[in-house]
Amino acid sequence: MSSTTETAVSRQWELVSRPSGWPAPEDFRLVEVELAPLAEGEVRVANEFVSVDPYMRGRMNDAKSYVAPFGLGEALTGGAVGRVVASHSDALAVGDLVSHDRGWRDVAQGPAAGFRRVEPVEGLPSSVHLGVLGMTSMTAWVGLLVVARMQPGDTVFVSGAAGAVGSVAGQIARLRGAGRVVGSAGSAEKVALLTERYGFDAGFNYRDGPVVEQLAAAAPEGIDVYFDNVGGDHLEAAIEVFNRGGRAALCGAISVYNATEPPPGPRNLSQLVGKGLLLQGFIVSWYAAEHGAAFAAEVGGWLRSGELTYDETVVPGLDRTVDAFLGMLRGENTGKMVVAV
Amino acid sequence: MSSTTETAVSRQWELVSRPSGWPAPEDFRLVEVELAPLAEGEVRVANEFVSVDPYMRGRMNDAKSYVAPFGLGEALTGGAVGRVVASHSDALAVGDLVSHDRGWRDVAQGPAAGFRRVEPVEGLPSSVHLGVLGMTSMTAWVGLLVVARMQPGDTVFVSGAAGAVGSVAGQIARLRGAGRVVGSAGSAEKVALLTERYGFDAGFNYRDGPVVEQLAAAAPEGIDVYFDNVGGDHLEAAIEVFNRGGRAALCGAISVYNATEPPPGPRNLSQLVGKGLLLQGFIVSWYAAEHGAAFAAEVGGWLRSGELTYDETVVPGLDRTVDAFLGMLRGENTGKMVVAV
Repeated sequence: MSSTTETAVSRQWELVSRPSGWPAPEDFRLVEVELAPLAEGEVRVANEFVSVDPYMRGRMNDAKSYVAPFGLGEALTGGAVGRVVASHSDALAVGDLVSHDRGWRDVAQGPAAGFRRVEPVEGLPSSVHLGVLGMTSMTAWVGLLVVARMQPGDTVFVSGAAGAVGSVAGQIARLRGAGRVVGSAGSAEKVALLTERYGFDAGFNYRDGPVVEQLAAAAPEGIDVYFDNVGGDHLEAAIEVFNRGGRAALCGAISVYNATEPPPGPRNLSQLVGKGLLLQGFIVSWYAAEHGAAFAAEVGGWLRSGELTYDETVVPGLDRTVDAFLGMLRGENTGKMVVAV
Repeated sequence: MSSTTETAVSRQWELVSRPSGWPAPEDFRLVEVELAPLAEGEVRVANEFVSVDPYMRGRMNDAKSYVAPFGLGEALTGGAVGRVVASHSDALAVGDLVSHDRGWRDVAQGPAAGFRRVEPVEGLPSSVHLGVLGMTSMTAWVGLLVVARMQPGDTVFVSGAAGAVGSVAGQIARLRGAGRVVGSAGSAEKVALLTERYGFDAGFNYRDGPVVEQLAAAAPEGIDVYFDNVGGDHLEAAIEVFNRGGRAALCGAISVYNATEPPPGPRNLSQLVGKGLLLQGFIVSWYAAEHGAAFAAEVGGWLRSGELTYDETVVPGLDRTVDAFLGMLRGENTGKMVVAV
């Protein structure tokens, strides 16, 4: 426990206006704020990496959702990992590595309970605690195994499969004994990664033709599990190609996050009855308490053994956070997108 | 075990052409066929009641579904209850009451294994084995308790609530401790039945205005469970009004059975992610082996104690089966629609 009465300066991104459709750089601004001296029980953390994630787009709208919208004129928040640089708490010491949700800034400060100490992994950057050992991978693990209840032998379809969540979901499916793993992505380069790097059995570029036709060709005996990162025509295609008793874990709908009009839903929902299908949306944080330890043990083991591969796209500099966020929404990342502060 | 080498005549409904949109009487014809003498192990049954159900409309299409489509020029099938009038099997005796799936005819015949002996209920017609003690009620029980996992205190919304399945679903919700039970129906008379006869807390006529507005007014604190008998705008409304963690059991989509173009799906499916919602289509027969005994014990008990009320609409005469079927699709029945042979 160090003691400091010093103030500090934090550079923070604020939301200036609510985007209508695609966010623009003008919807954000980078400001400097002076942080008060640490109060009793508080810590100050120098962020090393901050995360940009699809769900953040939803929080920029003023709509009812599972978390409150971001406030206008307030600092944005999100996953981050950093080092404790000052502490007025017995729970955390200077030098500790912590993960927390006060991202979009370089220096974060608050009660120690809001920061979770994590162990550095030898030979890997601390950003792994945002991605392959963090919420990103837990989303893949929970969605595939708890929500969609994947069984050995199942044919699994993952959309957005070259992304941070999708690339891990496909690998977990393979490691857990899926019979066939199929992924979609938005470029030939990404599709190549699916089979060559992440161990998918087949992949297709959704821009090359109707998703339903490409999916049916890639999974000629139908699919049993669908891990949905995109919504829209992918979900309709999955419903069409599902075998009886198929289960879809709905993780996000990046295809519609920036839509200004609500898009029509799948035209084939009546197949949910006819084939006994399940569609389950999920918020990973609801599952963390019950399943977090099992996730960390299994995925940590695969990471150490080298059975699980991951990619990161690292954008250097806090001032480029908005660029990174917009690039992620456009699909310019491979694997997890993070900003090195 | 009786012995007979006699032939018999059976009047049977055949599907002549596949309906496009609403079925017409010309799509069906009533024929007389001569039944062969009973083979070893077979029984002959005189049907007392045959069932007409929404799912039969789906089987008239030549589409992939959970059961094969009806064959053109073949006798239609469906739930029925009748008495054994001749038996070449040790398993069933003349006079036994049986339920089976060889409906749409007056005399049925086949291997005894296709007929299930049921106990007559004193004071009640044998048609109860098609409705309140049969597949109809099991659909309500399984959908509400197994699929949607209703918990005491939940607010439950049932569409098509004056129908055979819906009226029982609403009563089971109440008997199992739902906090509030809301139903929709298609006429003022049916809506009155919901609260006055079936114990719903509130009901509305979906023809009176937008479903989403009427549902939100009837369930001002949102809904936790939706038992879907109709699909379409009702499903979209339920998604809109669902609380976090809401569950929908999708039993049928009578609103779209006769559509010639696939209707657009709900425009608000992205709320499945944001609120962690579940949509689960189900086929009740998949659940019968595991849950049939528990269903029969619980619902039989409520029926004997008088806690569970049911209605039937009985159409007299096998020759009026198509009229009964079409009337059921138009919502002219209250409770279970059956034909007295």
